[in-house]
Amino acid sequence: MIPDAIQKFIAVFEKLPPFGPRTATRLAFHLTSLDRSTLETLIAGLSGLKEIDRCPRCFFLKERRARTCAICAAPARNPRAIALVEKDTDIISLERTGRWKGHYLVFGELPEHGVLETSHRLRLATLAKRIADELGGKADELVLALNPTAFGDFAADLIAREFSDKAIKISRLGRGIPTGGEIEFADEETLGQALERRT
Amino acid sequence: MIPDAIQKFIAVFEKLPPFGPRTATRLAFHLTSLDRSTLETLIAGLSGLKEIDRCPRCFFLKERRARTCAICAAPARNPRAIALVEKDTDIISLERTGRWKGHYLVFGELPEHGVLETSHRLRLATLAKRIADELGGKADELVLALNPTAFGDFAADLIAREFSDKAIKISRLGRGIPTGGEIEFADEETLGQALERRT
Repeated sequence: MIPDAIQKFIAVFEKLPPFGPRTATRLAFHLTSLDRSTLETLIAGLSGLKEIDRCPRCFFLKERRARTCAICAAPARNPRAIALVEKDTDIISLERTGRWKGHYLVFGELPEHGVLETSHRLRLATLAKRIADELGGKADELVLALNPTAFGDFAADLIAREFSDKAIKISRLGRGIPTGGEIEFADEETLGQALERRT
Repeated sequence: MIPDAIQKFIAVFEKLPPFGPRTATRLAFHLTSLDRSTLETLIAGLSGLKEIDRCPRCFFLKERRARTCAICAAPARNPRAIALVEKDTDIISLERTGRWKGHYLVFGELPEHGVLETSHRLRLATLAKRIADELGGKADELVLALNPTAFGDFAADLIAREFSDKAIKISRLGRGIPTGGEIEFADEETLGQALERRT
């Protein structure tokens, strides 16, 4: 009873993260009410993503036609300071602060079980090679910007040991009470860390 | 810093109902992590919607190449009983009950101010013509399946008057306490309607 094209749309879109069957259905009906040119704009927007791939140097997203990502290509940034993050969106968050002027390595999300996988190993290997080839074997700073979770801590310790001779300084993000937060509502672990790392 | 193609994607998708800037951004990054063929499937799904237009008889969605929608074309359905609904998704909801075997007219959503617009007028005119041409001037039943709101009631009264000589029976959907609902939690208006319409 629902036209095929709509059923097909729902079938493929309902599997995407923000959607379920209901949202995908609502979106399908909404889209059919749009004029043709708006639909064409959406199709172009989606098709445009085919022009995205990953930077061979830091694995952040880049335009297919570009050699590296915009961050690796920016002359004003310091390639001797490297922040290791789990995912692309972490870069977006860090860039939004305007406080990091170094480069990055997108490491890949840490698996639930905490053990590094081959993909993580390969990216660490390219990082080691990058430090060897471009920075004479030693970076100024390596910030292990992994999430402050048990697995993040575990992986960070491991990477810190492996890279101990490849960076002058190895750091992690500060940990404590969020700005604007209240001591009363901080959990014990956070408060403990805030105490230990008091400045 | 974010590749152009991703910014363009976000710019067009963030305007769609289920999205905001954050959801559109998250979706964009998720999509870049998919393999090429999944992305192609999504593009095909979205492009497929170009093959949808509206049934000239009841204004429900149909395949562009089909003359009418699947409901109007179904031989087992009764064309002498017509349910007037506001929107496509109301048809989906009614069809899901499996209790309506008649045809439909998609009337268009009622505006906030309650006054019928030209588009509603035009669709009512095609309904009148359909009753005249196909049903010899009189339908068996016209169900005014508009929402049970003040504007829905107002429009229904108006349409009922206009079509009083064009249908043997003009009805509205039953109104009362939802199945599974509790009297204690029903608002006064609903409870009042339930009393008045007791069966």
